[in-house]
Amino acid sequence: MGAILDQLSDEQRKEMERQYAVYTHGTSEVIPGDELKNKIAKSLLENKPLKVKLGLDPTAPDVHIGHTVVLNKLRQFQENGHIIQLIIGNFTGKIGDPTGKSVARVQLTDEEVERNAKTYLDQFGKVLDENKVELHYNAKWLSELKFEDVIHLAGKITVARLLERDDFEKRINANKPVSLHEFFYPLMQGYDSIHLESDIEIGGNDQYFNVLMGRHLQEQFGKEKQVVLTMPLLEGLDGVEKMSKSKGNYIGITEKPSEIYGKVMSIPDQLIVTYTELITDLSLSEKHSIRDELASGKAHPRALKMHLAKTIVRQFHGQEKAQEAEESFQKVFQQNKLPTDIDEVHWEGEQYITVPYLVTSLGMLGSTSETRRMIKNGGIKINQVKVTDIHLEIKVEDGLVIQVGKRKFKKLKLK
Amino acid sequence: MGAILDQLSDEQRKEMERQYAVYTHGTSEVIPGDELKNKIAKSLLENKPLKVKLGLDPTAPDVHIGHTVVLNKLRQFQENGHIIQLIIGNFTGKIGDPTGKSVARVQLTDEEVERNAKTYLDQFGKVLDENKVELHYNAKWLSELKFEDVIHLAGKITVARLLERDDFEKRINANKPVSLHEFFYPLMQGYDSIHLESDIEIGGNDQYFNVLMGRHLQEQFGKEKQVVLTMPLLEGLDGVEKMSKSKGNYIGITEKPSEIYGKVMSIPDQLIVTYTELITDLSLSEKHSIRDELASGKAHPRALKMHLAKTIVRQFHGQEKAQEAEESFQKVFQQNKLPTDIDEVHWEGEQYITVPYLVTSLGMLGSTSETRRMIKNGGIKINQVKVTDIHLEIKVEDGLVIQVGKRKFKKLKLK
Repeated sequence: MGAILDQLSDEQRKEMERQYAVYTHGTSEVIPGDELKNKIAKSLLENKPLKVKLGLDPTAPDVHIGHTVVLNKLRQFQENGHIIQLIIGNFTGKIGDPTGKSVARVQLTDEEVERNAKTYLDQFGKVLDENKVELHYNAKWLSELKFEDVIHLAGKITVARLLERDDFEKRINANKPVSLHEFFYPLMQGYDSIHLESDIEIGGNDQYFNVLMGRHLQEQFGKEKQVVLTMPLLEGLDGVEKMSKSKGNYIGITEKPSEIYGKVMSIPDQLIVTYTELITDLSLSEKHSIRDELASGKAHPRALKMHLAKTIVRQFHGQEKAQEAEESFQKVFQQNKLPTDIDEVHWEGEQYITVPYLVTSLGMLGSTSETRRMIKNGGIKINQVKVTDIHLEIKVEDGLVIQVGKRKFKKLKLK
Repeated sequence: MGAILDQLSDEQRKEMERQYAVYTHGTSEVIPGDELKNKIAKSLLENKPLKVKLGLDPTAPDVHIGHTVVLNKLRQFQENGHIIQLIIGNFTGKIGDPTGKSVARVQLTDEEVERNAKTYLDQFGKVLDENKVELHYNAKWLSELKFEDVIHLAGKITVARLLERDDFEKRINANKPVSLHEFFYPLMQGYDSIHLESDIEIGGNDQYFNVLMGRHLQEQFGKEKQVVLTMPLLEGLDGVEKMSKSKGNYIGITEKPSEIYGKVMSIPDQLIVTYTELITDLSLSEKHSIRDELASGKAHPRALKMHLAKTIVRQFHGQEKAQEAEESFQKVFQQNKLPTDIDEVHWEGEQYITVPYLVTSLGMLGSTSETRRMIKNGGIKINQVKVTDIHLEIKVEDGLVIQVGKRKFKKLKLK
């Protein structure tokens, strides 16, 4: 084990330790750490990039910043010249759900899979250099396997080990059906690592079982075992649940600069360090100093949050937009001015209208009763003046600005 | 369900009931009985034979009468014009054991598989009309399946159901490894039934899980479900354990007539009915009357056993040999005469020799001490005279007959 490390020059050793610190930072688990050191060392000695793998489900190409946790980790490898292997799991997508029970797992056509893959890449381009990734579709090799090969693959794993996977175990114990074909999803993912001879596989915590399967199967097939890096699942804006589109606590990476900036500013203070570590491209030393400043009270959480918000907007929209978003935010919230990029709406409705009806007509809130509650809480302004009367009727004018909560604005335009 | 039966003429209904009685006789389970009636009825109405399947392991072609229980059941279908599908499970044999752990499951070459299949057929010819069986090798269709097909197949069965199989459950509970590929053996057997559209599958009790799998999978693949007939495992000559070569309590179907006859005569009385029912080709009414005569004490067990022995020898060697075997047995055991077909041995050893040394030299017993015990028990005769002295020395002569126990004879021939 130590033999490879002993061959490093002093300079190479320093470089190895530097990369090791970057890659392991923010991870949940590195399995195992010493092998990661060896892999980096070997790459330096042989001047050969490592192959770093990420598997992707072809059905859900709508990327939010929760997904960028793993992308950000990939970027760190990419910045050091290593090869990124993105695997589109289209084999699963192509075969659909053989039980016919799950509506979610529908059969995708080749065209749909490719369109989804392109959407992925477009979005990933905001974190990775998309010109420097290898894109693979796993149906290419998996669809070629015959029954004999599948039996050979299945012979390398015990039923007991598969039953250890959390969701299988829970469902079996609850007498809920687990179809035999589901056992093959981790095996497929593992087989990808065999085929592509991946050195490293990155996955969220929820992929723990699947990424380890690649390591196990590579060994069984006489290949060098991949090192596994699992990443924490990012908490959503509420600071309670994992970020997910269905829970509404997310930031989409294609959202407008002001929207992203505002959403980051809304996170609870205890998430500042996590977000900074997991989704920004700041250097390790910057990350450390932010953590220290927050812990020591040297910097105000609000200032660090603004720095974080600006950084994230810069990552997805560039320096200029980040600057604008910051200025706009300061205007609205610190100087009580209106933002500069308010959506304009052509109004063809009535000229005299109650505020609750106006707000719901514009789709800014779901119901008039919700709007009335918002008025009672002081959350609705017309031309920057707080509305206090839940029955207030106003005259609609060109340029009228309606504000709901802190960040929702609309400006009326009459013909 | 009843609709098909209603279409039968009176004569056809009688014929259906006759066949049903024959096929269900001696079975452990018929799953389900009413479907079997429908299958027979449909076959009569459409004048179309049923396809009756038996799966065979290509590695163990040494047939004993325990195996003829299922063959005998097949023969009953064959006699009524139905088609027998013998499946040589060479796909399993060809892929071997992917874990490399089991020495028993070695990879067989195509030539070995074919040779074994031929050996099967040669032996089966003693029970079935081998010109009227369909021989299938399941690698033909199973080796063509691709990963996608395998997933589709695996999607039709739950893990929980597979875990219900006795041997899987026991091993999992004992923390002994079950490899995932083992789950596929029952699925392969089931797939054979889909491919061959079998109407009926016959198997020993130990095949209960596997044959039902065929029924389940046919339904899942939109085929008419096969009816399953399971047969009891035949008890060995000792009347205690299942008949098996390794336990030495078996009758090989290629053994000599006198050997088969003698072995049948050695079974305990309580096996007479079972053997008669499961391995003879006697008619249903003959079988019933034998059972009744034994129960009422109308016939002596010994007479029924002789009838059984003669019947079994006739089945494997023909009427003439059966007659001879019976006469020979009567001579030796009832009239205390020597059998007519004693093995002759050229003797080139010493002229004066002790009995224990002679008996072991001829390989009739394993050791001189064993021979001495046998003498003490009165089990050794020289020229039909019981030996009583364990140190007896005799003069070897041409034509000398040595008898050990009831059925082992050798005659010496000097040059």
